[in-house]
Amino acid sequence: MKRLSVAMAGSLALVFLSAPFARAEKPTRKSAAFTVNPIGHVKKTDGRTLIVLDGKFQPGLLGLDGFSHVYMLWWFDKNDTPQKRSILQVHPMGRRDNPLTGVFATRSPVRPNLIALTFCKLVSVKENVIEIERTDAFDGTPVLDIKPFIPGYDSSPDAKLPDWLTRARKQRKASR
Amino acid sequence: MKRLSVAMAGSLALVFLSAPFARAEKPTRKSAAFTVNPIGHVKKTDGRTLIVLDGKFQPGLLGLDGFSHVYMLWWFDKNDTPQKRSILQVHPMGRRDNPLTGVFATRSPVRPNLIALTFCKLVSVKENVIEIERTDAFDGTPVLDIKPFIPGYDSSPDAKLPDWLTRARKQRKASR
Repeated sequence: MKRLSVAMAGSLALVFLSAPFARAEKPTRKSAAFTVNPIGHVKKTDGRTLIVLDGKFQPGLLGLDGFSHVYMLWWFDKNDTPQKRSILQVHPMGRRDNPLTGVFATRSPVRPNLIALTFCKLVSVKENVIEIERTDAFDGTPVLDIKPFIPGYDSSPDAKLPDWLTRARKQRKASR
Repeated sequence: MKRLSVAMAGSLALVFLSAPFARAEKPTRKSAAFTVNPIGHVKKTDGRTLIVLDGKFQPGLLGLDGFSHVYMLWWFDKNDTPQKRSILQVHPMGRRDNPLTGVFATRSPVRPNLIALTFCKLVSVKENVIEIERTDAFDGTPVLDIKPFIPGYDSSPDAKLPDWLTRARKQRKASR
């Protein structure tokens, strides 16, 4: 019993002694924040849509022209306020007749992390400039990442949607 | 000429006086950094793969069960060092026989912003826990966002791939 206590006291001492160092090396995942820096921005000019990367990132585009489609990750910079980042439910597409829905079940531009994801058709890659067919991102929007689209890995031909979205898509098609 | 100089001096004074305030209010987009905070983490247990959100984000999941597939955005936390974030070209999948390729033309876990994107089949949504079929993210990985997959908006049935990737996919299929 005494031996056990000594061993326990030893372990505790070790825990207390090592804790501050362990903490400095391995920050608690749950409270950690991460930093993202724009790699470039969206430029809309003469009816064309460009992703202009900062020159230093140009080597990162080697081989991108082998793909036909990419995902652009960008930042909803117009909504970067604590208030907007705390919104967790919305009426999708701002329409009251769409049911109140969690932001993680929508592509809402208000959400805790303001990362936007847009699937884009590639037009060309020249030096540090990617031309894409279109995006709903505004001119000047900060871009965070470009990823190639890989069918099978990134998508499924048979995907289920909720009724409100199926209805909204039908209405949109009909109004074209 | 004298009048012009006075006007110019006035403008310059205005520029110098207003510059610090203007800068404080409107940070230059290009140099701005943005902060992301984990909304939860990946949990792998008993052969199941879960996304466990922090309890406060549970309202954000309302209606997610109407979808069959989601994108999970997460953080390559094991690579969050300035050195790894500066890597711009890799041999994809760590294979020397794949050509040197820009990170933006790969899904490499080293890239300037360590955001990962995984397409996931939904199994269930219960309270603050999403069960998915699988992910290559490790147990404990910080999760940043969940977005529903919307075919047509997020994918295309006819996408082009570079030769190295077509070859690698064929080899993978053959080895199964």
